[in-house]
Amino acid sequence: MQTRIGILGYGNLGKGTEIAVNAAEDMTLTAIFTRRNPSSVKTLSKNVPVVNIAEIEQWKDKIDVLILCGGSATDLPVQTPEYVKLFNVIDSFDTHARIPEHFANVDTAAKESGKVGVISVGWDPGMFSLNRVYANAILPDGNDYTFWGKGVSQGHSDAIRRIDGVKNAKQYTIPVEEALNAVRNGENPVLTTRQKHQRECFVVLKDGADADKVENEIKSMPNYFTDYDTTVHFISEEELLKNHSGMAHGGFVFRSGKTGINKEHQHIIEYSIKLDSNPEFTTSVLIAYARAVKRMYDEGKSGCFTVFDIPPAYLCAQSGEELRAKFL
Amino acid sequence: MQTRIGILGYGNLGKGTEIAVNAAEDMTLTAIFTRRNPSSVKTLSKNVPVVNIAEIEQWKDKIDVLILCGGSATDLPVQTPEYVKLFNVIDSFDTHARIPEHFANVDTAAKESGKVGVISVGWDPGMFSLNRVYANAILPDGNDYTFWGKGVSQGHSDAIRRIDGVKNAKQYTIPVEEALNAVRNGENPVLTTRQKHQRECFVVLKDGADADKVENEIKSMPNYFTDYDTTVHFISEEELLKNHSGMAHGGFVFRSGKTGINKEHQHIIEYSIKLDSNPEFTTSVLIAYARAVKRMYDEGKSGCFTVFDIPPAYLCAQSGEELRAKFL
Repeated sequence: MQTRIGILGYGNLGKGTEIAVNAAEDMTLTAIFTRRNPSSVKTLSKNVPVVNIAEIEQWKDKIDVLILCGGSATDLPVQTPEYVKLFNVIDSFDTHARIPEHFANVDTAAKESGKVGVISVGWDPGMFSLNRVYANAILPDGNDYTFWGKGVSQGHSDAIRRIDGVKNAKQYTIPVEEALNAVRNGENPVLTTRQKHQRECFVVLKDGADADKVENEIKSMPNYFTDYDTTVHFISEEELLKNHSGMAHGGFVFRSGKTGINKEHQHIIEYSIKLDSNPEFTTSVLIAYARAVKRMYDEGKSGCFTVFDIPPAYLCAQSGEELRAKFL
Repeated sequence: MQTRIGILGYGNLGKGTEIAVNAAEDMTLTAIFTRRNPSSVKTLSKNVPVVNIAEIEQWKDKIDVLILCGGSATDLPVQTPEYVKLFNVIDSFDTHARIPEHFANVDTAAKESGKVGVISVGWDPGMFSLNRVYANAILPDGNDYTFWGKGVSQGHSDAIRRIDGVKNAKQYTIPVEEALNAVRNGENPVLTTRQKHQRECFVVLKDGADADKVENEIKSMPNYFTDYDTTVHFISEEELLKNHSGMAHGGFVFRSGKTGINKEHQHIIEYSIKLDSNPEFTTSVLIAYARAVKRMYDEGKSGCFTVFDIPPAYLCAQSGEELRAKFL
């Protein structure tokens, strides 16, 4: 039986979800919901209705899982608790500090409606979180390290764009190779912010802007750049569009832990991803967990859950027997 | 409340389990069971009784989880279905081809007794299997690669020791660096056995043995060595004991997959481990899953399960709230 999927929000994440649902043999994309005028939204799937959000309630019995593709700053804190009243939902809420509050809101609403809500699914939070939990469970005595990149940080790129004289900009977060290697070699380094990541900026100036002044403003921006070794390149808009439009990203999660009578044995667990498309990978994770949402709901579960609560087999279309034969 | 652990079998795995249980604040080692004369077994834990296996039934209400530390060839296929009649059990059964049969035997017995049996827990099968399942669920269109090493292969070392003229031997399985890099770079190589792993042998000869003849016999051993580039070093017994007594191991699991409208985006997921002590890491995984066994039994579950069926949070002593705040 097909799992009927709805998408709310049609930006990069919404488009990535659409591609991933269409690639999944056990799923059907039923409708795409938008705050915009539906006729202004051009989707990839020709026969899938685009519906204004105002009419979403009419779809409550036609959709098994609604995938929320809005932003974490303002959309999801409202939408996830709201739509779990009508649908089983899943989101990629990624404001780490606000997860406990978001969880509580979704849990209350989901328990009232009898639906399942799964939050904070993607790669961090998501796959990176999972790896932290598994590795900490296995090696309770040790150190955790997370590195992000190489990839574009949207927040940092935006911060540069707000500087006077800047026309456009992209900022890459890059893990420092020496730090990665020190962790890999079991040195258990204590790393400052500067020792973990570098920042590389590609900036297009407005006509007549002062490059030195802009560079100085970038490098002295508190929180965003002062604590990092930052490189600034000034390039043409043409070059920016040609070479820096990609959405590649990646990162590393390490656990370095000790065992033994005298803690004489060291073990390193490393999980890393290298992604051509950050949104498409995130939505691929969302889709796998949407499968789990349906299964949990069918079992009679309700409330809010995270990747920590969900058995790995629930992400797969295959039977337990197939999984054991092929992957165990 | 403490989880009361029993250990059956006191070899490398049994000793590693003992260390890991003693390091876990929420667990107590209740008894160690052995086929040997208990008075001949010297354990690390002074106040833990060593009991002959013949008396194990008397302990059935005193132990929450029995950890089976026997071998996969002959011990576990008999012991796991047998002892799940009396106890919740967990094993590290690692004969991949026989897992479906072992699962069925344990499942039948566990359902009859109302107990929980978890099989094939360790790193491969175990953590590597988990990573294959997660990565396949996320990237259904792609290729899997598993590399083992650098580490000692017990089976290959034993095979060398059986050769006439060999006094002692250790064999290391080593992943080929070029192959690892080709996978990492997203080249999706088709790799032969020879292209994936090398074999390095350290051999101590008996007095008067013919080194050339032994080297030739090793390199021409079907299945074990003919399909690999094999290097043979002849060393003294002293050097073997000094430099090759360790139990270090490791390995890599990759998933290389594509997404996008035209499958134009590639993603690489890499999971790797580097272990000073293979048995101590394996038992650290066993202990984490023993926590899950107890929890599943307390929830009223029974039957056979694998790592695919168990929510990650069940491996942890922390509450869901703590896990979300710290690791998500």
